[in-house]
Amino acid sequence: MTYVRMKRARCAKAGIESRLVSLPATTTTAELVETLQSLSQDAGVHGILLQHPVGPHIDERAAFEAIAPEKDVDGVTMSSFGAMSFGLPGFASCTPGGIMRLLDEYEVDLAGQHAVVVGRSAILGKPVGMLLLARDATVTYCHSRTTDLAAIVQEADVVVAAVGRPRLVRGEDVKPGAVVIDAGYNPGNVGDVDFDTARTRARLITPVPGGVGPMTIAVLLAQTVDAASIQLGLAGR
Amino acid sequence: MTYVRMKRARCAKAGIESRLVSLPATTTTAELVETLQSLSQDAGVHGILLQHPVGPHIDERAAFEAIAPEKDVDGVTMSSFGAMSFGLPGFASCTPGGIMRLLDEYEVDLAGQHAVVVGRSAILGKPVGMLLLARDATVTYCHSRTTDLAAIVQEADVVVAAVGRPRLVRGEDVKPGAVVIDAGYNPGNVGDVDFDTARTRARLITPVPGGVGPMTIAVLLAQTVDAASIQLGLAGR
Repeated sequence: MTYVRMKRARCAKAGIESRLVSLPATTTTAELVETLQSLSQDAGVHGILLQHPVGPHIDERAAFEAIAPEKDVDGVTMSSFGAMSFGLPGFASCTPGGIMRLLDEYEVDLAGQHAVVVGRSAILGKPVGMLLLARDATVTYCHSRTTDLAAIVQEADVVVAAVGRPRLVRGEDVKPGAVVIDAGYNPGNVGDVDFDTARTRARLITPVPGGVGPMTIAVLLAQTVDAASIQLGLAGR
Repeated sequence: MTYVRMKRARCAKAGIESRLVSLPATTTTAELVETLQSLSQDAGVHGILLQHPVGPHIDERAAFEAIAPEKDVDGVTMSSFGAMSFGLPGFASCTPGGIMRLLDEYEVDLAGQHAVVVGRSAILGKPVGMLLLARDATVTYCHSRTTDLAAIVQEADVVVAAVGRPRLVRGEDVKPGAVVIDAGYNPGNVGDVDFDTARTRARLITPVPGGVGPMTIAVLLAQTVDAASIQLGLAGR
């Protein structure tokens, strides 16, 4: 509810009308899919965000796929993932899209750099790896089954931590001069990186909160404007 | 034409009827898309393979996307890529699917192993990496812009070479006991791995030819039978 409130407030500030569709906890997958399909067909709606994770009794993938690709401003459909993976026009998942904007803003040259992504979720780890790969980074995906995370992080020019485990990436493992992106958020305003030790070695590092988080919402709004422009015939992709 | 002949011969042997649709070199993207859409709607066709690469004037992605997902037995659509990436039911790209069957047949335990994929094509490198990741390997994607390929290969428990550069992976860089899959094919029956030196260090290694290649066709046929079974209502996924 906090996230949703923040997104609605940012929409209002940017002049984007938002509509909150609240469904009861007892909603079934079929009902949720129907709601999303109906919003997909509603000409008055240009972008759709399904606030997730959804309840465990819901088939989240089925729900995501009910969002029309042209309104998928949160970049959660398989079609959007394919576009990110194959370098085609489309909407990025918002957090990965925000991370790429941060890297661009600070002119981080990715070609040939070793980028290590810790986490492999469908919305964050997997797509950010694909976006880094499309920019010619050498990309390693690590996750809970990775046996020697420290050794792999030690080789990374760019680290993206996106797993949701507090301070999993230790500062002592950060290569001096590396770029560290912390996309984790854990209770108590703690990221996936041990910030205090990592900052002494990293060339660039994002704080938690105030780093990746605000970029996620910014990309959501930017993509919503893009979606509306295209649907209203005001711009091409 | 050689590949197409081989596939048709293997179909005939397996009792699968195949239809060859030859188009002139002057065919446009729109004409190819129309042909594929028409085959997608043809109830007498259960699987569609677009022999690729297509000519440089063709938008290959647009052509692939004209194949109905339920007939995409070659696993080339974005929808199939999404299914491979997210561990959902669907058709694998045939060469990656064949590689996974080989690894399973030889009981290679992938969980926690470091798999290095050399190559990042939409049909081979990217999907095989996603399939390995789904099996809990730590996955690194290397490619033409990777700066220190040798050092990364030296860390690999599993190497998949899929780039189309003769003997790019040197035997001396193969970690003793590693599993080496050579999905490359270069003129003169040469793979992407220096087989003669790599075989002295690898625990398991595929030859070229006769390794991954036959598996690709086998998976194509198996997936065609699956597609037909589903479309004819003989089996669920």
